[in-house]
Amino acid sequence: MTPEIDGVRLLRRLTTLGQIGAFEGGGVCRLALTDADKAGRDWLVAEMERLGMAVHIDAIGNIWGIRAGQGAGAPVMVGSHIDSVATGGLYDGALGVLAGLEMVETLNDRGTATEAPIAVAAFTNEEGARFAPDMMGSGVYCGALDQGEMLAVTATDGMGVVGEELDRIGYRGSDAPVIPAAYLELHIEQGPVLEQEGVRIGAVTGVQGIHWTEFTVTGQTNHAGTTPMALRRDAGQVAMRIAREADAIAAGNGPPQVATVGVFELSPGLVNVVPETARLTVDLRNTDGAVLEAATARLTAFAQAVAAEAGCAVSIREMARFAPVVFDGGLVDKVEAAAQARQMSVKRMPSGAGHDAQMFAALCPTAMIFVPSENGLSHNIKEHSDPDDLAAGAQLLLDLVCTLAGARA
Amino acid sequence: MTPEIDGVRLLRRLTTLGQIGAFEGGGVCRLALTDADKAGRDWLVAEMERLGMAVHIDAIGNIWGIRAGQGAGAPVMVGSHIDSVATGGLYDGALGVLAGLEMVETLNDRGTATEAPIAVAAFTNEEGARFAPDMMGSGVYCGALDQGEMLAVTATDGMGVVGEELDRIGYRGSDAPVIPAAYLELHIEQGPVLEQEGVRIGAVTGVQGIHWTEFTVTGQTNHAGTTPMALRRDAGQVAMRIAREADAIAAGNGPPQVATVGVFELSPGLVNVVPETARLTVDLRNTDGAVLEAATARLTAFAQAVAAEAGCAVSIREMARFAPVVFDGGLVDKVEAAAQARQMSVKRMPSGAGHDAQMFAALCPTAMIFVPSENGLSHNIKEHSDPDDLAAGAQLLLDLVCTLAGARA
Repeated sequence: MTPEIDGVRLLRRLTTLGQIGAFEGGGVCRLALTDADKAGRDWLVAEMERLGMAVHIDAIGNIWGIRAGQGAGAPVMVGSHIDSVATGGLYDGALGVLAGLEMVETLNDRGTATEAPIAVAAFTNEEGARFAPDMMGSGVYCGALDQGEMLAVTATDGMGVVGEELDRIGYRGSDAPVIPAAYLELHIEQGPVLEQEGVRIGAVTGVQGIHWTEFTVTGQTNHAGTTPMALRRDAGQVAMRIAREADAIAAGNGPPQVATVGVFELSPGLVNVVPETARLTVDLRNTDGAVLEAATARLTAFAQAVAAEAGCAVSIREMARFAPVVFDGGLVDKVEAAAQARQMSVKRMPSGAGHDAQMFAALCPTAMIFVPSENGLSHNIKEHSDPDDLAAGAQLLLDLVCTLAGARA
Repeated sequence: MTPEIDGVRLLRRLTTLGQIGAFEGGGVCRLALTDADKAGRDWLVAEMERLGMAVHIDAIGNIWGIRAGQGAGAPVMVGSHIDSVATGGLYDGALGVLAGLEMVETLNDRGTATEAPIAVAAFTNEEGARFAPDMMGSGVYCGALDQGEMLAVTATDGMGVVGEELDRIGYRGSDAPVIPAAYLELHIEQGPVLEQEGVRIGAVTGVQGIHWTEFTVTGQTNHAGTTPMALRRDAGQVAMRIAREADAIAAGNGPPQVATVGVFELSPGLVNVVPETARLTVDLRNTDGAVLEAATARLTAFAQAVAAEAGCAVSIREMARFAPVVFDGGLVDKVEAAAQARQMSVKRMPSGAGHDAQMFAALCPTAMIFVPSENGLSHNIKEHSDPDDLAAGAQLLLDLVCTLAGARA
């Protein structure tokens, strides 16, 4: 049997990192490449070194520590990120990295060697909250994003450029990425499904495809009292119909289709003025790429039809188009089996959110482990997960790595 | 026959006043009780004095000039306002006041006397753009609003109090309001109906009742990818349904029912976050008070039902409730007849917007004359009306005043 991890020690590390960039009363702000991110990185590197790992940093600031194996093959990598959104919690990203440290410390304590090296990685700017796009570090690591372009990205608030900020905080490295033998990422679910169903472990089968579309409707502004309905070209009501259609598409397709209208703005935005323009965004996700394409096609055709009917113009902008990612079926089977071996309840499920793991799926066998999020909350200072669930996830990670890396009894 | 007014002179006065607070390229900003408003008032008072009128100012800053009659009865009053919204046009309000001056100058030029005195009035803060509520001066004049309360009103931007601003610009007077024998107001339609139907004169039958209601829906914020539709409490979609229902109510009731959703806000307002709260306003108007009450009752019941169905809470705030105002039927008949006598096309119609005239309806026989607005635009620097239409309206005003005040041949 694999050694037992120390759940209290895991929690202590989560709390310690959680004090860096902490808000009073809970939550953290460790936006990528800020002073808080640097402080988190410094602490992480010190922990890796304390655990005897060889620390590597590449040109985009990804950090990975390697615990040597008895053989010289490719490492089994576990990883995630330690940057946060502006009002983030303690577990999103940090769990996957710090469970890696806990895993290494457990192996060290027991003197357990592995055939393959083990790598624990923290990728730069997974959140994309300060610099777009998200999953920037893992994207560059895996070759999906261009390193030069990413180094030149300016912050969304205009304050800072990736390359300059890496230099400023001292994390522009020169190590070459290594292709892992396998990649595993432990993460909080950031959704309500496991909690609702009373299941401890999600064996993640892949990442939903994501289509973000922005609709800008232009009609005519008019006085709300003096303009009869028949003479209006109300951009707002056209936009409402598009929003309702997005909801109808989700209902029609059924799970796992989701549709979200998160941004909706009217201009001029006055009580007694018929809106001249309306802008909304629709976030459609599905694990089935073809169904997702059809959903987006149906919505854009609907938008054009209702705008024309109302005498309005609509411009449609593709903000994001990510095809679904499918994880390695054999590795997902192993996650499921490992959970069952520990008598942990487990459910195969897709991820509704993007993760660094999706960048690795094209590079090596990749899978993810989810643990429940209380009330499904994440990207929120109230983000919380049960300590027992966190420990269970870390244990499973260790169990799997011991298998994949060939642990010696 | 009544003397003919001078359309060019009327237009010259509109242009002259329009230079006070003018934007480059068109439009004016003469917000109530600002320096620009004071400059407009100073010019108006000088014009009245030049025309030999006795100028009166009351405690809320309403200005009225009186051209003496041969008898001593109550004056026939024409009036409107010279304040504007922040981005206003040259005609909204100004037309009704300056047509009054043109009328007096025409009578002076022809040496035409009237039995009753004639009053030309400009009421303080009709727009309500800087100080709420609108129609403040005429409301105080007619006793519908409390003078002390109105003097204590603070500007919507926090900069200034009505009484102090009146002192500052020198327009807190002490004259007592006089109850007119009749009140007539010439105004641009501010809507598209006359233009669309090719009619020159609107004989305004009354003012639509107005119900403004604010709905604030509270649900639960969630991640747009990780939260299945069935587990959401999406405040935004509930709000969209309320907005669509408002539109359905207008369609169901038919004209003159109008419904406008002018404000619609989501929070947190991010592409990939299910909205936690949504706020919208619905502006419902109808000339039939009972139908309007029923429309509002239907909408609020709908809002409560759909919010409950979606697991959301909704709070409903009455922002404004104005009952419809019915003008004097006999006087409206006179407007219509006077237009027909001049071979002007005329249409009886309600006003969709509020006007000073509605305050007088309870005090004395009251009516309004509308002339077409190009493209129905108002509260807009592009506000425009055809000079011939403006002159036609002013002529009609003079014709009616000559009748009502008893002009001597």
